[in-house]
Amino acid sequence: MPATETPSPTPELLHLLVGDPEELAAILSGMRAADVAEAINQLPDEAGARVLAGLPFDLAVEVLDQPELEHKGRIFEHIDKDAAAPLIEAMSADEQADLFREVPTSIRSRLMSALDAGTRHALEMLLRHAPETTGGIMTTEYVGVPSDWTVERTLRYIAEVGRVKETVYAIFIENPRDRRLEQVASLRDLMIAPRDRRVLDAVSRRVPLSVRPDTPREEAARIISKYNLLALPVLDERGHVLGIVTVDDVIDTMVQELTDDVQKFGGVEALDQPYMEIPFLSMVRKRAGWLCALFLGEMLTATAMGHFENEIAKAVVLALFVPLIISSGGNSGSQATSLVIRAMALHEVRLRDWWRVAARELPSGLTLGVILGFIGICRILLWQAIGWYDYGTHYPLVALTVGVALIGVVTFGSMAGSMLPFVLRRIGFDPASASAPFVATLVDVTGLVIYFSIAYVMLRGTLL
Amino acid sequence: MPATETPSPTPELLHLLVGDPEELAAILSGMRAADVAEAINQLPDEAGARVLAGLPFDLAVEVLDQPELEHKGRIFEHIDKDAAAPLIEAMSADEQADLFREVPTSIRSRLMSALDAGTRHALEMLLRHAPETTGGIMTTEYVGVPSDWTVERTLRYIAEVGRVKETVYAIFIENPRDRRLEQVASLRDLMIAPRDRRVLDAVSRRVPLSVRPDTPREEAARIISKYNLLALPVLDERGHVLGIVTVDDVIDTMVQELTDDVQKFGGVEALDQPYMEIPFLSMVRKRAGWLCALFLGEMLTATAMGHFENEIAKAVVLALFVPLIISSGGNSGSQATSLVIRAMALHEVRLRDWWRVAARELPSGLTLGVILGFIGICRILLWQAIGWYDYGTHYPLVALTVGVALIGVVTFGSMAGSMLPFVLRRIGFDPASASAPFVATLVDVTGLVIYFSIAYVMLRGTLL
Repeated sequence: MPATETPSPTPELLHLLVGDPEELAAILSGMRAADVAEAINQLPDEAGARVLAGLPFDLAVEVLDQPELEHKGRIFEHIDKDAAAPLIEAMSADEQADLFREVPTSIRSRLMSALDAGTRHALEMLLRHAPETTGGIMTTEYVGVPSDWTVERTLRYIAEVGRVKETVYAIFIENPRDRRLEQVASLRDLMIAPRDRRVLDAVSRRVPLSVRPDTPREEAARIISKYNLLALPVLDERGHVLGIVTVDDVIDTMVQELTDDVQKFGGVEALDQPYMEIPFLSMVRKRAGWLCALFLGEMLTATAMGHFENEIAKAVVLALFVPLIISSGGNSGSQATSLVIRAMALHEVRLRDWWRVAARELPSGLTLGVILGFIGICRILLWQAIGWYDYGTHYPLVALTVGVALIGVVTFGSMAGSMLPFVLRRIGFDPASASAPFVATLVDVTGLVIYFSIAYVMLRGTLL
Repeated sequence: MPATETPSPTPELLHLLVGDPEELAAILSGMRAADVAEAINQLPDEAGARVLAGLPFDLAVEVLDQPELEHKGRIFEHIDKDAAAPLIEAMSADEQADLFREVPTSIRSRLMSALDAGTRHALEMLLRHAPETTGGIMTTEYVGVPSDWTVERTLRYIAEVGRVKETVYAIFIENPRDRRLEQVASLRDLMIAPRDRRVLDAVSRRVPLSVRPDTPREEAARIISKYNLLALPVLDERGHVLGIVTVDDVIDTMVQELTDDVQKFGGVEALDQPYMEIPFLSMVRKRAGWLCALFLGEMLTATAMGHFENEIAKAVVLALFVPLIISSGGNSGSQATSLVIRAMALHEVRLRDWWRVAARELPSGLTLGVILGFIGICRILLWQAIGWYDYGTHYPLVALTVGVALIGVVTFGSMAGSMLPFVLRRIGFDPASASAPFVATLVDVTGLVIYFSIAYVMLRGTLL
């Protein structure tokens, strides 16, 4: 497969070469920036710094511009100040900001003072925005032209400045007097337009899409992906362009979002650092919160079981099926929840559709419950017949109790699991916080009550 | 917030207007294609077809090119053949292919015969590829130029054909003799290059990245996102360009992948249709498979409990804490699994790092277990002190048993949950199939054994 013709260096090779970063740099200089970044991630910070120093300047800058390059901040601790300043100035503005968010405060002001005034000014503006907002991922290097320029003049300008801009494929047309954004042109619009036309007349007259610096970055990602944009302008309250967000940033944001969602569904507060790097105590804190909350909820199972202590004492055989029955409810519940969460995220299902979902989940849950109930009954009858276990003289009744309880619990699990995301959204929470463990806890308590109530009705006069 | 200046039409408005699709079309024609597609999704197929027919031709084509537009196939059943053919021919090739995958076979050949030979030929080639491969999402409308053209001539060619190509930002430079791909240029490369230079000399000499039509589409998405490409060529075995995949396609693929992952983690086979549209029986089938597998695994809990029937009969109080203890193990397990799955997907953790993960999870699990164990002991002592429940004369021993069991089960859950993705990957499965319910099932059985073994040791001579 011709996919990546420049294979990543093996760890063996890296270990061999780590003593000689110059030699490693020579090998890496034939590679793509993303691959070099991956290779450097596997080295200690100091060796990484020496490799970067040995690379051709343009490639080093490109490598530093990769969001995949880890702990840039610590690498810069090992780079000489005089070598660091030109590298940083050549980086794109959004990556500069990311770097300064990471460097230890001890060297931060030293590095900052080595930069030229323009870079420093832009950087200070970017650093004012929180990283989870659009302002925190935008870059200031966009192509902006006055609206009275011609297409020809704009294309010549792009040819001049194109090398240093984050993207040249979206051109931001500003009012020549007050510099407010008037229109956004794609380079394609300009390429196919007559060269002598005014740039403003070469594009559609629609008010351009834009966001504010405090817009959540997920919202910017949603707009870029829905309208297939290559870049989205970030405006201040007077309509001036502060910066732009590009489609590359959006992909990175989506990867982050995917991570958050999976972690949330697994019942962990989203980690904001790579798994192997997050300090031990931070990780325990992030996990303990949810785990304790679930534990407190699950304590209700002990209370519920306590109410049925007499029944259990009379018919210990009932206790044997407790884990089987409540876990089946939890499993069908987390299935239903994961389906509904995704359907909501994709806008396939809205808040007002709750009854349509309920109308699907009721028969689905019943059908699944009947299937599991049937298997459960067969299992008990089979074990009794073979003689692997003795469920007592009333074993057919025990089997029937388990079967009916499974139908009830699985149906309830599907209903509860599918309705929970609606409830969460209605009261203003993210439906994705309906994690699998949360649903399971909810269903466990109710499942016990359903099971023992059915047993109480079905076994009264025989076992109970 | 200036985000979307054209608000989506409210459902009320749509219902008001659905009797008059011409009027609706007039309103929609001022909107963006993605918003129109969303509006049409809320209409019955026939009304959607009439709205499309009422839109200006270019906008109708743009709307049909939105991957978000649902059941295009059924909409086309209501469009006159003579009106359909020009619409289809103007659509981009990848969306044509998607449309023909959806249209009922009854009208498929009728529509196909109305298309011109060139479109039909390209379409038949695209339809040969499975939708989950790169060939299934590629499009054939790319800008290809012979490598002996100058930059000037290439730019003039783009100005001519730019309107009808999927993207003009990646230019595919082909050998003039055998049409093999030699190089990929970005439009930026050409814009900043001298106009009289040969196009091949305006770009880097690296072998271009490419994929084959049978490459999984996730792999194409990974390459585009890692190397920040705008388009990736799909080559046949002789090195000819069959088509291209663009960054927009990648975003759609990532959304799909996100859905699959969440569904898998919830313990459902990935649905290939929207939740509200998948037929009842298909949904039950997709869910029943996993649910039955988990149920069979969970049956082992009944077997495990059976081994301790005597202990339960002697000390019914032990049964009360069974759900609490096993669910705590399951919860800590699904936390650990979700963390490790994501760390693997982001390449933060590799197969050989398993012992480093284990070395982190062991202390984490122990700490979390101690926290939950402490809460559990307090709960029992408190209930006893207040008089809400009577755990018998040996209640301090019962509390201690529950506490120690929690430490053991939570530690085991964290270890098992974190190691399972490694085991799955090692034996060749997708680590993401380590769903939360799967982990919970695994931990339930073991958790029971741990609990009753600890109880056996600690309570012998008193309760047992």
